[in-house]
Amino acid sequence: MSHPWFDDPIPGPDTATLAAAHERQAQLTKPPGSLGRLERLGATLAAMQGTQQPRLDQVWISVFAADHGIVAEGVSAFPQVVTAEMVRNFARGGAAISVLAQEWNARLEVVNVGTVQALGDLPGVLDARIAAGTANFVHEPAMSVEQLHDALTAGREAAERASIGGARLFIGGEMGIGNTTSAAAVACSLLGLPAAQLAGPGTGLDAAGVARKALTIERGLARHRADRPLVALQRLGGFEIAALAGAYLRCAQLGVPALVDGFIATTAALVATRHQPDLAAWLFHAHRSAEPGHRRLLDALDAQPLLDLDMRLGEGSGAAVAMPILRAAAALHARMATFAEAGVSQS
Amino acid sequence: MSHPWFDDPIPGPDTATLAAAHERQAQLTKPPGSLGRLERLGATLAAMQGTQQPRLDQVWISVFAADHGIVAEGVSAFPQVVTAEMVRNFARGGAAISVLAQEWNARLEVVNVGTVQALGDLPGVLDARIAAGTANFVHEPAMSVEQLHDALTAGREAAERASIGGARLFIGGEMGIGNTTSAAAVACSLLGLPAAQLAGPGTGLDAAGVARKALTIERGLARHRADRPLVALQRLGGFEIAALAGAYLRCAQLGVPALVDGFIATTAALVATRHQPDLAAWLFHAHRSAEPGHRRLLDALDAQPLLDLDMRLGEGSGAAVAMPILRAAAALHARMATFAEAGVSQS
Repeated sequence: MSHPWFDDPIPGPDTATLAAAHERQAQLTKPPGSLGRLERLGATLAAMQGTQQPRLDQVWISVFAADHGIVAEGVSAFPQVVTAEMVRNFARGGAAISVLAQEWNARLEVVNVGTVQALGDLPGVLDARIAAGTANFVHEPAMSVEQLHDALTAGREAAERASIGGARLFIGGEMGIGNTTSAAAVACSLLGLPAAQLAGPGTGLDAAGVARKALTIERGLARHRADRPLVALQRLGGFEIAALAGAYLRCAQLGVPALVDGFIATTAALVATRHQPDLAAWLFHAHRSAEPGHRRLLDALDAQPLLDLDMRLGEGSGAAVAMPILRAAAALHARMATFAEAGVSQS
Repeated sequence: MSHPWFDDPIPGPDTATLAAAHERQAQLTKPPGSLGRLERLGATLAAMQGTQQPRLDQVWISVFAADHGIVAEGVSAFPQVVTAEMVRNFARGGAAISVLAQEWNARLEVVNVGTVQALGDLPGVLDARIAAGTANFVHEPAMSVEQLHDALTAGREAAERASIGGARLFIGGEMGIGNTTSAAAVACSLLGLPAAQLAGPGTGLDAAGVARKALTIERGLARHRADRPLVALQRLGGFEIAALAGAYLRCAQLGVPALVDGFIATTAALVATRHQPDLAAWLFHAHRSAEPGHRRLLDALDAQPLLDLDMRLGEGSGAAVAMPILRAAAALHARMATFAEAGVSQS
């Protein structure tokens, strides 16, 4: 039997282009190093695209939505129906990610991988509903192995649509009431941390709510802790988290870099890079979320986020706000004149 | 005799619109506070524009270029001719700020307020040359009072062009070999700091060069230190620094916010806000520069920059990279749906 698609190898960005890109950066009309982190970002994008004229004109955003059985334990400040309500809001253009996608002229699609409510036909929303939410991981695994594969595949298919659509960058977003609890449980499992270190207020729990959330996660960990990344994801995760992990893996297999958003998306990136470490070379990290545990996830990935603006909304919104920094880095790398071209003296 | 234009009062952003903007932020479809700093930025832009539909579609960038007599003391890693060479590079579109202006569809103009070399006619470059560089402030005041007024007025006129051109945001940039030395001298004078705390590598001095630069600044301070902001600017500053200060003041008088770039631009903002404290309400701060002294300037202004990407190029480039964050904040404020509009349940 052949291995599953998510074990297919991930190529590295082109090393010859990368070396030439670093040389080019040293020749552009600026004091060496004066563009700071944009210089390495520009060179990295050049290597990813295999050209000294990298572009970030086409950006693809897939937002995966799903519900979580764990909300039965009272772990969210918002009612579960908000997941479906927000999918309708995405479709009508009223959500933060809708506004940002429009502002940057990015392609936005929403993929319903498992809301409790069936949603019917909505413009811009794909119905890929695996179940009416996951199971409550305090009592049973969040999903079956087959459901995990379906969710990973939903992400794979989004990555393939992005690639076929000419995307130069993939942004994955998520919507799912309760998903900071699922994400924290998965991350605790992989990082060997107690729940108290990754449980945070999410959409707005008070201190007592955070304590209850941590306790709920500990109950899940006691039953389902696993250090194999896809096993932890299956037992404790969510359909949208699995879809994000699948999307990141497939994007990298196809040579499309991804800009990782906040706490949930970074958990998916952690799962996916633990599954295939070569993925790391294809990920950019958008921002440091205000969700307290995010810092630990970033540290675990040795990730330096681009922004630190106290955002904690999800939906891919932090990535969408950070995207223009990558676009700027690509443009500067591609289009600045060299000292020789401009006739500018060097130091 | 009437007072000079730069003493004209600066109106405050509209307080009623600001209060309504904070209320609106609490009603948008997101957990309260989850857009972090973007929420306050959006509300502030609303108050500045007097509308709940703020826009940042039109952005104006004026780059002021001038030379500095102080370079005779060997304070720069690059030769003085680079100022004029870079003005040509701006005009041809090869500089970082040229690329970024094009990328964001911003209007870019270059104002020559005093290069040593006359430059003739260049597309996109205004000739407002006050002198062939400032005088060497180790020996004499950098400029006369009349020259100071001419430089401030060059900035005023740029602000007026921006306002007439419909600009929603002004970005001031600078180019001037030696200008970190002049800026550090002005800032030390206003903040009562020793030169060693604000002298940095600039375009790339080594440790011995930085020490020489600090010594040079101390010699200037011993002769010309002044705590009145415009006097310090006249004795120790540069034409482009004065033009930036004039531009910030006039922008605020006209109700156009400015996004302040790095070390030089922040020195100009410090001078201008010390001259008129009401200016502060109209300034955004783009980034924390890698130039070590910048942190002290930001602290003195109680400024929280948007980015920290180790940039230290000047030209307005840090502000241009940060601009989309403000554009995003305006768009989110203006166009996100409220809970009521979207039919989304609240916590």
